[in-house]
Amino acid sequence: MGTSMMTLQLSGYAPSRVDARRAAELRPLVEHFNIEYCAVLDSGHIEEWPRFFTEDCVYRITARENAELDMPVGLVYAEGRPMLHDRAVAISRTQMFAPRTMTHILSSPRIVAEEGQEIWAQCNYVLLQTLVEGPTTLHLAGTYHDRFVRDGDELLLRERQVIHESSVIANDLVYPV
Amino acid sequence: MGTSMMTLQLSGYAPSRVDARRAAELRPLVEHFNIEYCAVLDSGHIEEWPRFFTEDCVYRITARENAELDMPVGLVYAEGRPMLHDRAVAISRTQMFAPRTMTHILSSPRIVAEEGQEIWAQCNYVLLQTLVEGPTTLHLAGTYHDRFVRDGDELLLRERQVIHESSVIANDLVYPV
Amino acid sequence: MGTSMMTLQLSGYAPSRVDARRAAELRPLVEHFNIEYCAVLDSGHIEEWPRFFTEDCVYRITARENAELDMPVGLVYAEGRPMLHDRAVAISRTQMFAPRTMTHILSSPRIVAEEGQEIWAQCNYVLLQTLVEGPTTLHLAGTYHDRFVRDGDELLLRERQVIHESSVIANDLVYPV
Repeated sequence: MGTSMMTLQLSGYAPSRVDARRAAELRPLVEHFNIEYCAVLDSGHIEEWPRFFTEDCVYRITARENAELDMPVGLVYAEGRPMLHDRAVAISRTQMFAPRTMTHILSSPRIVAEEGQEIWAQCNYVLLQTLVEGPTTLHLAGTYHDRFVRDGDELLLRERQVIHESSVIANDLVYPV
Repeated sequence: MGTSMMTLQLSGYAPSRVDARRAAELRPLVEHFNIEYCAVLDSGHIEEWPRFFTEDCVYRITARENAELDMPVGLVYAEGRPMLHDRAVAISRTQMFAPRTMTHILSSPRIVAEEGQEIWAQCNYVLLQTLVEGPTTLHLAGTYHDRFVRDGDELLLRERQVIHESSVIANDLVYPV
Repeated sequence: MGTSMMTLQLSGYAPSRVDARRAAELRPLVEHFNIEYCAVLDSGHIEEWPRFFTEDCVYRITARENAELDMPVGLVYAEGRPMLHDRAVAISRTQMFAPRTMTHILSSPRIVAEEGQEIWAQCNYVLLQTLVEGPTTLHLAGTYHDRFVRDGDELLLRERQVIHESSVIANDLVYPV
């Protein structure tokens, strides 16, 4: 699984490098991945979350204005699957004290580029949160900026940059997006 | 149209029993079904709603916590297409007194299993409600847990369990989801 | 690119004239179009917006109740690509004074009809708005009623009627949907 030098473009608009026909072939693979990813998070099985990533992955949640200023850090930053695993364990303990459920709604993914076994994609998301005995509210919205690596018909995330629009976030955001 | 003994799993996470390639083949059928289903409900033509179900169908709307405790009943429970029809007639009369419109936004469906002519699927939804002269608000969010039966390229619902996240629901919820 | 006499039906429910199999073939083309369209608007590159339309296009944003009463005008009405271009220039100047970002979440498109090189489609949308230093809020929800013309694998909009549910709209809505 060779690594391309191309980096994710986190702001602005760049035309897709993949034509409509090829995008239509790749989109179901990315959709399948995102559906399973969200099913794991929405059902609260966060211990399954790290298996969607490569060993050498990068995962970050950051505000759009941070991304546009090219600020390196964000609300969450993790490098490598073991760090995701540690995070998942920590959260699964915390959640017991503040039970809530998450519902992801995703747009169809945008296929931005393909190079060898790697696929670059974007996807708009809205994350709805429900506290126990409380209403359902709009928690976070924004865009995944993803770099997948293919392994046959299956994909793994080498990088997921979760950009969120609002810089005003409830400080209880620890759950992955 | 033989019936499987497999029951819908309404909580927790279970890996899909269908591989990525087969899921990509079945997803457009389920998508097509859900698009037509929502077009009927969103346009207010509730009298068309029962035709999406089999004669021996089950339709239920219930809170996630009810489903997790395996409580049988919910906000709405209907068995058989005639009961859906009665419900549709009752609602079409009620709606005249409290006019509102609904807008469904669905995620891509998750294909969970396939057995003979039956397809098990899930789909996250968010339902937006607009009262006449009022704003558009987030009314309900959650997951469809579905059991379809194929009839050629067309599907019918043998069972739709509509799980909603929040247990705090406005008591005016009578419209199907 | 011949023009059909068929007009867009903006209210009520009419069954799709396209069968499930053909709809599944056409849906990826429309999805690809809508993904690129939203990527341009969400990234704020409004000067790219007119290129999604034909020279002789119609673009309108109007409330559902206006559409149902067959009222001709709405919040926004533009005829022809040059008028869209003028609008885009005007907005790109205005936005500097009230910076905000938009996030579109779309449902899968409904393929309503196909005639020659033209495709009629619908698509539910929810538009989330984030003001700088503010929260993300539900700005608008409703349905695109579209008339595309094919040019090989690519589509152009001959007509996009953006119906929104609520008649109560913040008067700052100038940005395209």
